[in-house]
Amino acid sequence: MSNPNPAPTLRDVAEAAGVHTATASRALNPKTRQQISAETARRVMRAAQALGYQPNSAARSLKTSRSSTVGLVIPDLTNPLFPPIVRGVESVLESDGYNVWIVNTDNDDERERAQIESLRSRQVEGLIVATARLEHPLLRRLHQQGVTMVLINRQVEDLSIPAVTGDDATGVAAAVDHLVRLGHTRIAHLSGPLTTSTGRVRAQAFRHAVRDHGLPDDLVIECARWSEEDGATAMRELLAGEAQFTAIMAGNDLIALGCYDVFAERGISCPDDVSVIGFNDMPFLDKLRPPLTTVAVPHHELGAEAARMLLDCIDQPARPARSLLLPVTLVVRGSTAAPRS
Amino acid sequence: MSNPNPAPTLRDVAEAAGVHTATASRALNPKTRQQISAETARRVMRAAQALGYQPNSAARSLKTSRSSTVGLVIPDLTNPLFPPIVRGVESVLESDGYNVWIVNTDNDDERERAQIESLRSRQVEGLIVATARLEHPLLRRLHQQGVTMVLINRQVEDLSIPAVTGDDATGVAAAVDHLVRLGHTRIAHLSGPLTTSTGRVRAQAFRHAVRDHGLPDDLVIECARWSEEDGATAMRELLAGEAQFTAIMAGNDLIALGCYDVFAERGISCPDDVSVIGFNDMPFLDKLRPPLTTVAVPHHELGAEAARMLLDCIDQPARPARSLLLPVTLVVRGSTAAPRS
Repeated sequence: MSNPNPAPTLRDVAEAAGVHTATASRALNPKTRQQISAETARRVMRAAQALGYQPNSAARSLKTSRSSTVGLVIPDLTNPLFPPIVRGVESVLESDGYNVWIVNTDNDDERERAQIESLRSRQVEGLIVATARLEHPLLRRLHQQGVTMVLINRQVEDLSIPAVTGDDATGVAAAVDHLVRLGHTRIAHLSGPLTTSTGRVRAQAFRHAVRDHGLPDDLVIECARWSEEDGATAMRELLAGEAQFTAIMAGNDLIALGCYDVFAERGISCPDDVSVIGFNDMPFLDKLRPPLTTVAVPHHELGAEAARMLLDCIDQPARPARSLLLPVTLVVRGSTAAPRS
Repeated sequence: MSNPNPAPTLRDVAEAAGVHTATASRALNPKTRQQISAETARRVMRAAQALGYQPNSAARSLKTSRSSTVGLVIPDLTNPLFPPIVRGVESVLESDGYNVWIVNTDNDDERERAQIESLRSRQVEGLIVATARLEHPLLRRLHQQGVTMVLINRQVEDLSIPAVTGDDATGVAAAVDHLVRLGHTRIAHLSGPLTTSTGRVRAQAFRHAVRDHGLPDDLVIECARWSEEDGATAMRELLAGEAQFTAIMAGNDLIALGCYDVFAERGISCPDDVSVIGFNDMPFLDKLRPPLTTVAVPHHELGAEAARMLLDCIDQPARPARSLLLPVTLVVRGSTAAPRS
């Protein structure tokens, strides 16, 4: 029979105060107390007193040898979807007394390796990684080495690393439904790189959605990168081909902006000649000419949930990996209309 | 009389190879050679051989105890002017074998203090700081402590910290000239916070420029932050007042976008009713409705020059501080036109 009144643990205190155990640990140590808000510290100390908690000094010393730092690995900071993710991550981690160090890999494998190595050599407690490709040897190796890590936005194939992503498939289906309801029957998809989960999932969802409406699914062109420039290149390729189309589902907003560039070059009117839908709802799209219809991904929430998941992984390393899929929303603006009859 | 052939130093090798001494040091040490490009390493080794350089192993050990890491302190990553600055900084530092760790202060003093402390505790070799206010006790203290630091975009009052900024005064004068040539005689300025050098310099330049044209200089409203929301608030305040105006010089592009929001609310047409000019030329302004006339600041170059200056400071700590002012350019788009007659 187990002891009916076991000594309260740090986790019990944390639970009573409604904070993570890392926060509770900081609150109970005078040396680290100033890292968290005075109000939180008071709440934890009251909970500890109420429960009669006695700190285990060996455990405490272990806890406070933590670096209180987390690394955030971003593929391209100039893509406007990432800054809101950064703020979401920080909103959770900073209130928990963590500092966030951001590195920008510029989609360069060698830079990514050097940056993650430098973060690890300074004992960051965990990584939030937005650079995942489906095949990603570096992340595979870090995972095998037991590095505490949460993926955000994109996933690695066949690896049980915790991840927080948007519900891309549902978003693409909603976008295609919108175009079909407007009367479009020839819809093209300018996909992101199919080496990324976001590229592959959106392209697959596109094919499924158009087929579900009995429409052809062969109008798919892959962009080499998630950029305005590569979106323009794909748009020119689509126009150079034989295929007729009246609407574009772009892999993301930057690819959609690349379409706008080609429309301006060629005198094509959007939405009169061609409708376009983006993906992400990055800032300022409502002020574009025309305002871009897109699928809004809750990037701030994505960041916040990834941060919460990382704190859980730091607190409870044995807990199995899980993935979180956040709902997305179609935002209809001026870039979509009925096709010319 | 000095020795006509003193032993060549590391600096001589670096100069002969056209690299920084930090780079030369890395190239000559087999343990750190892989941190730089193979081509650069070869160039340095050839220069060392040609000069007959003998490494001083004590000095070398000192050099290699360096962390090869630089901290970049950003006030608000969601302001689109900062990501190009980040890339400019990285373009120089990464090719020199440095990793860049970015922290985002969200304009919060306490966060900035904690983040800079955490960077320093991991022995970053220097800081590039974009958060400066005219009065900035933390930066003042770091400067007094001898922390290697370069300011970017903004400066601190009365402190000789090296800085790289855009030539704001010339940019504002060019913008005002453009409006005056179009026929505007009642021009308002929605300034950024006057606690920052960018806010103060642009507001002063505005007053000088309109006075130089014999126009009134009293139409100035200060925004609390450099944000779209605060730009909208200032625009509403301007409209609520008695003053007549036909053109707005906004403190930056985000403030100009706040004006666009209020125009949409009130049914004001830009540029027919009011002309607007921004500052920075952040991405995608050419696709706005209307495309925004603005002053283009070379943010990538700003970042690259600040990184070069920081490397100089790391190499030659005794060198006096200097400031670099980079030229800016007026970019005329659709948001400015002649006033209604």
